[in-house]
Amino acid sequence: MTEKLWGGRFAAATDALVEQFTASIAVDQRLFREDIQASIAHARMLARVGVLTEVEASAIVHGLRRIEEEIAAGSLPFTDRLEDIHMHVESRLIELIGDVGKKLHTGRSRNDQVATDMRLYVRSAIDRLCALLYDLQRVLVDLASREADTILPGLTHLQVAQPITFGHHCMAYVEMFRRDSDRLADARRRVNVLPLGAAALAGTTFPIDRWDVARQLGFDHLAENSLDAVSDRDFLLEVAADLGILAVHLSRLAEELVYWMSTNVAFIDLPDAFCTGSSIMPQKKNPDVAELIRGKSGKVMGQLVALLILMKAQALAYNRDNQEDKAIFFTAVDEVEMSLALLVRMLPGLQTRPERMRAAALEGFATATDLADYLVRRGVPFRDAHAVVGRAVRLAQERGVGLEQLSLADLEAISPAIDATALEVLSLEGSVAARNHLGGTAPAQVRAAIARARQRLEQEARR
Amino acid sequence: MTEKLWGGRFAAATDALVEQFTASIAVDQRLFREDIQASIAHARMLARVGVLTEVEASAIVHGLRRIEEEIAAGSLPFTDRLEDIHMHVESRLIELIGDVGKKLHTGRSRNDQVATDMRLYVRSAIDRLCALLYDLQRVLVDLASREADTILPGLTHLQVAQPITFGHHCMAYVEMFRRDSDRLADARRRVNVLPLGAAALAGTTFPIDRWDVARQLGFDHLAENSLDAVSDRDFLLEVAADLGILAVHLSRLAEELVYWMSTNVAFIDLPDAFCTGSSIMPQKKNPDVAELIRGKSGKVMGQLVALLILMKAQALAYNRDNQEDKAIFFTAVDEVEMSLALLVRMLPGLQTRPERMRAAALEGFATATDLADYLVRRGVPFRDAHAVVGRAVRLAQERGVGLEQLSLADLEAISPAIDATALEVLSLEGSVAARNHLGGTAPAQVRAAIARARQRLEQEARR
Amino acid sequence: MTEKLWGGRFAAATDALVEQFTASIAVDQRLFREDIQASIAHARMLARVGVLTEVEASAIVHGLRRIEEEIAAGSLPFTDRLEDIHMHVESRLIELIGDVGKKLHTGRSRNDQVATDMRLYVRSAIDRLCALLYDLQRVLVDLASREADTILPGLTHLQVAQPITFGHHCMAYVEMFRRDSDRLADARRRVNVLPLGAAALAGTTFPIDRWDVARQLGFDHLAENSLDAVSDRDFLLEVAADLGILAVHLSRLAEELVYWMSTNVAFIDLPDAFCTGSSIMPQKKNPDVAELIRGKSGKVMGQLVALLILMKAQALAYNRDNQEDKAIFFTAVDEVEMSLALLVRMLPGLQTRPERMRAAALEGFATATDLADYLVRRGVPFRDAHAVVGRAVRLAQERGVGLEQLSLADLEAISPAIDATALEVLSLEGSVAARNHLGGTAPAQVRAAIARARQRLEQEARR
Amino acid sequence: MTEKLWGGRFAAATDALVEQFTASIAVDQRLFREDIQASIAHARMLARVGVLTEVEASAIVHGLRRIEEEIAAGSLPFTDRLEDIHMHVESRLIELIGDVGKKLHTGRSRNDQVATDMRLYVRSAIDRLCALLYDLQRVLVDLASREADTILPGLTHLQVAQPITFGHHCMAYVEMFRRDSDRLADARRRVNVLPLGAAALAGTTFPIDRWDVARQLGFDHLAENSLDAVSDRDFLLEVAADLGILAVHLSRLAEELVYWMSTNVAFIDLPDAFCTGSSIMPQKKNPDVAELIRGKSGKVMGQLVALLILMKAQALAYNRDNQEDKAIFFTAVDEVEMSLALLVRMLPGLQTRPERMRAAALEGFATATDLADYLVRRGVPFRDAHAVVGRAVRLAQERGVGLEQLSLADLEAISPAIDATALEVLSLEGSVAARNHLGGTAPAQVRAAIARARQRLEQEARR
Repeated sequence: MTEKLWGGRFAAATDALVEQFTASIAVDQRLFREDIQASIAHARMLARVGVLTEVEASAIVHGLRRIEEEIAAGSLPFTDRLEDIHMHVESRLIELIGDVGKKLHTGRSRNDQVATDMRLYVRSAIDRLCALLYDLQRVLVDLASREADTILPGLTHLQVAQPITFGHHCMAYVEMFRRDSDRLADARRRVNVLPLGAAALAGTTFPIDRWDVARQLGFDHLAENSLDAVSDRDFLLEVAADLGILAVHLSRLAEELVYWMSTNVAFIDLPDAFCTGSSIMPQKKNPDVAELIRGKSGKVMGQLVALLILMKAQALAYNRDNQEDKAIFFTAVDEVEMSLALLVRMLPGLQTRPERMRAAALEGFATATDLADYLVRRGVPFRDAHAVVGRAVRLAQERGVGLEQLSLADLEAISPAIDATALEVLSLEGSVAARNHLGGTAPAQVRAAIARARQRLEQEARR
Repeated sequence: MTEKLWGGRFAAATDALVEQFTASIAVDQRLFREDIQASIAHARMLARVGVLTEVEASAIVHGLRRIEEEIAAGSLPFTDRLEDIHMHVESRLIELIGDVGKKLHTGRSRNDQVATDMRLYVRSAIDRLCALLYDLQRVLVDLASREADTILPGLTHLQVAQPITFGHHCMAYVEMFRRDSDRLADARRRVNVLPLGAAALAGTTFPIDRWDVARQLGFDHLAENSLDAVSDRDFLLEVAADLGILAVHLSRLAEELVYWMSTNVAFIDLPDAFCTGSSIMPQKKNPDVAELIRGKSGKVMGQLVALLILMKAQALAYNRDNQEDKAIFFTAVDEVEMSLALLVRMLPGLQTRPERMRAAALEGFATATDLADYLVRRGVPFRDAHAVVGRAVRLAQERGVGLEQLSLADLEAISPAIDATALEVLSLEGSVAARNHLGGTAPAQVRAAIARARQRLEQEARR
Repeated sequence: MTEKLWGGRFAAATDALVEQFTASIAVDQRLFREDIQASIAHARMLARVGVLTEVEASAIVHGLRRIEEEIAAGSLPFTDRLEDIHMHVESRLIELIGDVGKKLHTGRSRNDQVATDMRLYVRSAIDRLCALLYDLQRVLVDLASREADTILPGLTHLQVAQPITFGHHCMAYVEMFRRDSDRLADARRRVNVLPLGAAALAGTTFPIDRWDVARQLGFDHLAENSLDAVSDRDFLLEVAADLGILAVHLSRLAEELVYWMSTNVAFIDLPDAFCTGSSIMPQKKNPDVAELIRGKSGKVMGQLVALLILMKAQALAYNRDNQEDKAIFFTAVDEVEMSLALLVRMLPGLQTRPERMRAAALEGFATATDLADYLVRRGVPFRDAHAVVGRAVRLAQERGVGLEQLSLADLEAISPAIDATALEVLSLEGSVAARNHLGGTAPAQVRAAIARARQRLEQEARR
Repeated sequence: MTEKLWGGRFAAATDALVEQFTASIAVDQRLFREDIQASIAHARMLARVGVLTEVEASAIVHGLRRIEEEIAAGSLPFTDRLEDIHMHVESRLIELIGDVGKKLHTGRSRNDQVATDMRLYVRSAIDRLCALLYDLQRVLVDLASREADTILPGLTHLQVAQPITFGHHCMAYVEMFRRDSDRLADARRRVNVLPLGAAALAGTTFPIDRWDVARQLGFDHLAENSLDAVSDRDFLLEVAADLGILAVHLSRLAEELVYWMSTNVAFIDLPDAFCTGSSIMPQKKNPDVAELIRGKSGKVMGQLVALLILMKAQALAYNRDNQEDKAIFFTAVDEVEMSLALLVRMLPGLQTRPERMRAAALEGFATATDLADYLVRRGVPFRDAHAVVGRAVRLAQERGVGLEQLSLADLEAISPAIDATALEVLSLEGSVAARNHLGGTAPAQVRAAIARARQRLEQEARR
């Protein structure tokens, strides 16, 4: 005869391996605060509507608070036999306060209970992630400010394209992380909805007051449909997708850091404290943190895939498959949190190597487009100007020199529209300064963008 | 010598297989209206700021309009030699209006041009998807209204759990598709941002007016950073993720339709016009539409994965990898649109088989929880009540009868707290009616939810 | 000044969070036996070629054996400061035997060391998986044997198609798991290749004997190229893909178990010991093990995706991203191993409910194809026969009876080719018995397939 | 009334949008040769066993041959109304030869028919892919031979690690593509199994001879179980997984080509015919082919994910979901074939820039490990030697010189174990030559590896 709380109709005990396989306590113990918080709100509401007496509710709340302390102190042993965090808490409650503890589960089910716990958890995870995204944007804006005038060869196809500034490049990432933060904020609205009251799937026959629970727990809305309330994991899918997109940004930034640090490129240096060496090659200084962030980004995406597959297979309402959602989701959140925290610490110590960047820009004919634009301003149609400059580049390449090292005679021979004024547009500083419109790389524009970003971040911080 | 528009510095012509491999016209021709619309706005702005004369701009606009008609009529031949839709339009423009056509590309690049085209396309795709989601919600609400009292055995773990109503079940999907619509609306805000003006990656040296273009094209914001403007595909990733989550809902609904239609379950019948037969088994009526929707959902998720992998590998700014984003994204949108459209047509014809559903609910002891709740109301702690009813279920199973067929004597023998009043709570109608709170399955609540949904949808329709 | 073994050129100590982020000991401690086994082989080879003295090699081997015991006993504390299992072992070795321990790392690098450890691990994981697949095939063959004559309605599109036997259905899964086993055996050939000797990426300047190490460790081949040896993780990708396909089979079997157990279908019953109940609904008996297996299958696929993304991003040779491969791969292996082990224990207790299955087959007109084949044998072209039987099915449906309940007069009215002999082909037993060719569902064929499978499995067991 | 071939029991015609949604002819028309080939084999077998007369079989074969010509010539119009390639062929056959054509479908179903067609298609796709992998290995071996002595800075973590040769690097890819070819050959064994005879799912009542069909079509085995035969798509999953791993290799090679071509690295130059320019920046020469290959690799992986999700959701036997497998699989095959073909054409024209690679190797202290190994040979334990060289690297970095530019006095000051002989080991040529064991980068070893690879490839070609 089983001793399980649900075992009434069962004739045989659970197989030992099954107990291990189906237990989730190793994973869901992380939810103990949320579980107890939600149970306290539930108990108080039950008293308010008369299902419990005030005395019963007080005993329950008192017992739950004590269990929270026990778990926080590590003094409550966990066992697969008790399956999950809900059963551990309830079972301990009955130990502590006796039969009154058995009344806590009135009018609810583990199905709506775990959905509530997870929504509380995800809500605070979003808040932590947004705080890290805020910090990271601050760090990037500060770096952009420090390097607003530093010339960097802007690349497309990993080929030198046009000169930009390092600060402008940093601000591109500010835009990405800002969108991540926006997306999470949007998701938070859909997360912050109370499922409790759905019970197993159909609602309950007790006269519950769901708005009372919602107010206690800070939820903005009630789940409108009990089936949906227990079967829905959109709130995990959406946040996991947001993390997947965020991981794209982390991976792209990491990829660029690795590239810029590459011995052959050497545009930047990362602090020793964020690099490691080789057990065999004494000269190595490896950007391991960036590489691991890049590697972990694939892991985050893999978890999104796992979660999508998990959910799409299921008929309504709750199925046990859903138990797997937690380990998968926690992995994604943990990896992203850690990656963000490390970037926040590492990026302030990034050192640029301006002389390497300038040299690379010149070697790459970065101002060729400026010459084409110059010709356009002198009446040459853009398509024809493009062809003229293409010929100038071939000439410079054949001579092994930069565009700015061609003689005026050479340039004039290529197009009669060129005269001495052309030489000015071929300088790196002239080129960046000329892209002087909202969004352009001109240092003045970068500083304006920095100012706008700082203002926006201050507003966010006040919220 | 190459004849490519970008070929000035190239000494050798493009390999023929390369031309085929790199050409995107087969895929991006779908963007011709967006490309021309954006070019017209660009030309008008160039005239407004003095880069073009009004006469030149007029000639360009006129030429572009004619090209739009030619493409719509299928009279402009496409060729891999001209690579993409941008080059086809520009090349034809020069054919039509001569050298003035060469001036259109002033102050922009294909990098910001294609980003603009895609944002226009995604914006209208979102609008089409939201319209379909609206229609689907209407259809489901109507079905819920028709079946608000129809008893369906509510399942968890695919086991009969508690009685619910078919209408309540339909309303669960209304909640899912409502969230899909909300998510797409949130994404739309991030889509509706103008990248044009970023040029290749750094902005342009021409005195462009980006707000002028934004106003012409209906964009709400300007991309704040030129590098981000040309390298960002978050707007595709986010919508693809939204479609992935939507595909979860489509798959779950399809899975349930297939299960309900299964000969062994037979809770519903789908219209002949939406089923197909077998080439060998004459009796078959297969729910192919639902199966294909389920199958296509995996395809949609696969496209999300492809897009995430595509983007995460790239350093800034633009890389040619991005060309692949279009075929992938179009596939995801097309499959979801088609699936939604078919559900909108098919679901009104769904017939329920109430007698099968009632029989199944009774066979599954669907009202066992009601008996436990009854005991709780008579003072038995929930955990003990659960155990008592577990014993009653075992007894009924041993006898091969439903709970409602046990005699009062049997029930009283199991628990002294039971008396004749217990028999009422064991009816299916009594059970559903008792779950009478917001979100519960009571027909009164389902009708209230339907009324709220209709009001919300009417508000959405007015927007 | 750092105390790291690689810290010579570093001026600053590692950031504390970085130490935590980059450490892999929590994950790779699982490899301690493999790491020590490979180090012993390496030390012995170094002595054989004269790089170490025999005395030095003996001291190293003795020290390593002691460390293996310490770790097995849990008495060696792990710390993030020492990064990974390699550094823990080496550092402890130096503690135990002094400076001689510092000579162990001669002629190798952590890059080829970890690749060797992982290949040893994967080799034994494959062997464990194949043993489980063997056991599962045995269990399924036994079940097939027990149920070789049990009629089950064969489904396509989840619609009753034709009668089959439950034993035949079991044998379909034997085929799937057999292919899984074959695939893993093929992968094992590519896993069993020695990377050691590649050192960091280029080989070593010491006169190593790689074949000596290969023989000691049981590897069949040497990695042919040092760069490939340290950067290649095909052996993980291939096994992860094999696990992904195996997970498809696990998921399909789990899906069928859940469907067959569904209250509305009820073709089987699973043992109490492998099911769990509900905390709220006393009558529930849920097939949780099957549901979790289905859920975990998505997790396994997610890990494959993570691994593919991880590897595709990397230029040669080794990058730190690869550290992530272990946690991902271990998760996939663990979930599949556990799922297989549970099926092996659970399936022998599966009980069929033959009367439910027979009834369902008759209700679904399962013998309609037999009637069509009958007509073909009487000279009606198949396509016409199909149409005739379609009309018979419509008639039976309208009357609410089975095909076998139509009168001879009814049948004759539908086609003149039908006479009294038709009634025989409409029986379930007649139908299955008639599919009497290799691969067909006739009980005689199922028994023959069982015999062949048993013979094959015995041969495998002897290997 | 429907006119569908399966429409006997249907009262209403198929919805027009459903016809479009469920039709697969746009995708599966690619299988027309396989479909006809398999039908011819089936017809001949039916004659051999007496189900058809020889005259009937001849008429059918003759008709099918004519249809093959018509489709090849594009003269058979395709229509969604006829659903798929099978129905098009059968319907045209009946048009051409009358009622005899209706007998072709005897003893089979579209379920086993399409599985047979696909296995034939996959078998030839494997053969095409292996031929391309063979060509690519040849091209890489030739390149390795040309560049067997060319010094390249070997990278780990994208940092200069140790000098290697470009030829050695090329041979790493030969190993990868060799494994891809091996894996596909293993998969081919599992693909080359005949499903025909399974009919819808249970086998057929006709006295078919499956081995006769297998012999005609070149299949090595018969599918052992009819349910598995029609529901199994492992052969697609396995090949898709093999393509996913191959795509990892394609992506890594593409990534390296892009990196080596990067203006800032400039280790190689790719032929103009395989690069494209910019519509705005006249100096650009972009490695678009490599970028597209990298981008397409994500697409290939996405298709694998789609296919896994598609299959895992399905109960046995055939479900309509499977129709989607074709478009997904074809996309994966097409992208990989095209990518391989382009590499085969492009790589012979790759030019190395040896002076850039030498300079980079020296700048990166690539021979530091050689100095450590030198110290070990002089009695210093490896760990201590590592620390000594770390200090030498720091000194060189502080001075802004290479290791080989430190004075003997400097080196002696760092360790008393260093004398004048140390200077020899610091040369790039000395370093690579010293890694002279199987798998090492010494030019002698690279040439030996090339010779082994050529011998192996010749053997493969003879098969």
